[in-house]
Amino acid sequence: MWLPTESDLVQNRLAFAMVGGKAGVTPKSEDFSRWFLDVVKFGELADYGPVRGTMVIRPWGYALWEALQQYLDQRFKETGHSNAYFPMLIPRSFVDKEASHVEGFAPELAIVTQGGGKELEEPLVIRPTSETIVNHMFSQWIQGYRDLPLMLNQWANVVRWELRTRPFLRTSEFLWQEGHCAFATAEEAEQEARNMLGIYCDFSTQMAAIPVVAGRKSAAESFAGAVSTYTIEAMMSDRRALQAGTSHNLGQNFAKAFDTTFLNQNGERQYVHQVSFGMSTRMIGGVIGVHGDDNGLQLPPQMAPVQIIFIPILKKGSDEAAVIGAVDRLAAAAKAAGIRTKVDADQSKSPGFRFNYWELKGVPLRVELGPRDVEQGLCILARRDR
Amino acid sequence: MWLPTESDLVQNRLAFAMVGGKAGVTPKSEDFSRWFLDVVKFGELADYGPVRGTMVIRPWGYALWEALQQYLDQRFKETGHSNAYFPMLIPRSFVDKEASHVEGFAPELAIVTQGGGKELEEPLVIRPTSETIVNHMFSQWIQGYRDLPLMLNQWANVVRWELRTRPFLRTSEFLWQEGHCAFATAEEAEQEARNMLGIYCDFSTQMAAIPVVAGRKSAAESFAGAVSTYTIEAMMSDRRALQAGTSHNLGQNFAKAFDTTFLNQNGERQYVHQVSFGMSTRMIGGVIGVHGDDNGLQLPPQMAPVQIIFIPILKKGSDEAAVIGAVDRLAAAAKAAGIRTKVDADQSKSPGFRFNYWELKGVPLRVELGPRDVEQGLCILARRDR
Repeated sequence: MWLPTESDLVQNRLAFAMVGGKAGVTPKSEDFSRWFLDVVKFGELADYGPVRGTMVIRPWGYALWEALQQYLDQRFKETGHSNAYFPMLIPRSFVDKEASHVEGFAPELAIVTQGGGKELEEPLVIRPTSETIVNHMFSQWIQGYRDLPLMLNQWANVVRWELRTRPFLRTSEFLWQEGHCAFATAEEAEQEARNMLGIYCDFSTQMAAIPVVAGRKSAAESFAGAVSTYTIEAMMSDRRALQAGTSHNLGQNFAKAFDTTFLNQNGERQYVHQVSFGMSTRMIGGVIGVHGDDNGLQLPPQMAPVQIIFIPILKKGSDEAAVIGAVDRLAAAAKAAGIRTKVDADQSKSPGFRFNYWELKGVPLRVELGPRDVEQGLCILARRDR
Repeated sequence: MWLPTESDLVQNRLAFAMVGGKAGVTPKSEDFSRWFLDVVKFGELADYGPVRGTMVIRPWGYALWEALQQYLDQRFKETGHSNAYFPMLIPRSFVDKEASHVEGFAPELAIVTQGGGKELEEPLVIRPTSETIVNHMFSQWIQGYRDLPLMLNQWANVVRWELRTRPFLRTSEFLWQEGHCAFATAEEAEQEARNMLGIYCDFSTQMAAIPVVAGRKSAAESFAGAVSTYTIEAMMSDRRALQAGTSHNLGQNFAKAFDTTFLNQNGERQYVHQVSFGMSTRMIGGVIGVHGDDNGLQLPPQMAPVQIIFIPILKKGSDEAAVIGAVDRLAAAAKAAGIRTKVDADQSKSPGFRFNYWELKGVPLRVELGPRDVEQGLCILARRDR
């Protein structure tokens, strides 16, 4: 698990000082969209890339993504999936093979037409999703019923040319995991699609502290190429729904387009039944947008890169070593208990500045300790969500 | 750490049966290049992608990459680096800003000219490396000496249009980590470049069991834009050198091209001193090419997805439950000791077939156990490297 380094701290501190030591965040009630962008910016979660619609994920934001990765990766492996990696560049003709798939994705494609100083014979698309290239490989790997089920996952970047973008929520390039599975029967595929939605539910509720509604999307809103799409929907603070993770029962649509077949136990050739599922950096947008207030971010404790921030408060003429010693002992005890901690003893900044700073960053719990507290054997706890 | 699932096992088994239950590997002494390709194919480490020069990394190969990721990621974090993510698409004009950089990379670029159904105003390149876009952001983030050092790393894919490709060793798209750091002084940058090379040395020797020669590359062979490039070079089984990891002291070359400056403690504006460093999926090619023999792969124990394979040998009329029970107890004891284990009790395959299969896969240690062994309280150990 990532912890901020001293260099992060110094760097972030300076940016924070530039906005006057206050969050500088637009009130959430006043303008949710501006509030969201302010929190992303001042909380140093992400910045704008030079190409329209792209974002740079900064360490504090990337640490949230790593928490998501760690949880999902383990759950996928426990449920029989292996990680693999498929190439990002896909022949344009692949996308055209499945009728509703091309209809859905063609308007959003980024297309490579030159490579190595030459015009390419066939244009290549940067994957908007990988069902087509996965089926190209599956049709070679799968021969008989013993090759099934085949259950893979990949962590990757994808590109979808979006007109309206917002950091995390909708970007031209985003990071995600995409699972791709093939089964012998329709029942297994349907069960897998539901099971994976269950893992997304667990992540949302247990890790991200976001209640979700799970359900099936309407035909019009289903994934381009799916028989049915399951989704978990969260509610953002502006009361709008956010699609936070989807799993698709693809039926035999891609199998038919790519001739992905197997010989069953009776020696009959059959199309496989497929499932794909994905969760992306959009989920981090959900964490930001669901939690948080006018003072900035509020991180769910399970995902917070720092769960407890310790702030020693030194006063001139008081026993500084006693305070620092007490804080270090408390922080060490918390760390030994498996809690991600950090001590912010930067005396060039006032206690108030440091309180505001870590509130903006969304750290769930703050422990304050001054000379008087040490004498009395007390400390002050401040919960970020209260 | 990844473990093969039953579905992998069944799937791999079938492919293996197709080559007659033998490795089917070209003898290494006869033709190293063909031997390498055979091991990659029959060991199911990777397959060819549909676009020239691309590869699909299959679970057994990807697990080796995950072992590398896990080790390096921890070492980088321990040495003060944080993970971040920079966009893959870079304005073409960025690459042109640093003279030797453009000269080195221009012939290898993949270029996006269309997005969202329209011709783009400025062509975009898919990152061949990220120094340019990193500097674009660093020049915004770095203002004063308190912002330094800034030490980031990203796990990403890059594209370099290569004419001659080989799985893992040279592919048009590959996976890597790229570290990007900025310092106030030349001394710190030089130290960082050397320290990171030290981490690569540690990985090679301690995890990959590959001895390396560390040194500085000649000016002609240095990274396009670097003041000096450090490298670790391994020797493949065909006695050719393999560049397995590099770190670059970039001096102020990119800082000058992108105006990445800071105010020092005397209030003077200075260019930062920079370092970048990277290790890629090519290293997995090194693991394959340095180790291994005519029977297939030989995996270094620290990286092996399965460290011990247990093979129960059942005989008709014998006490099958006693053998299975003994194997399960041994495997559980090894697992409890932190060893990655797997039991292959597939009785539809002969013991010899199973021995060959796991030898091809490179598992370091095999434990065989039959009814007679159980009676005598013995088992047979076979080291893959003997």
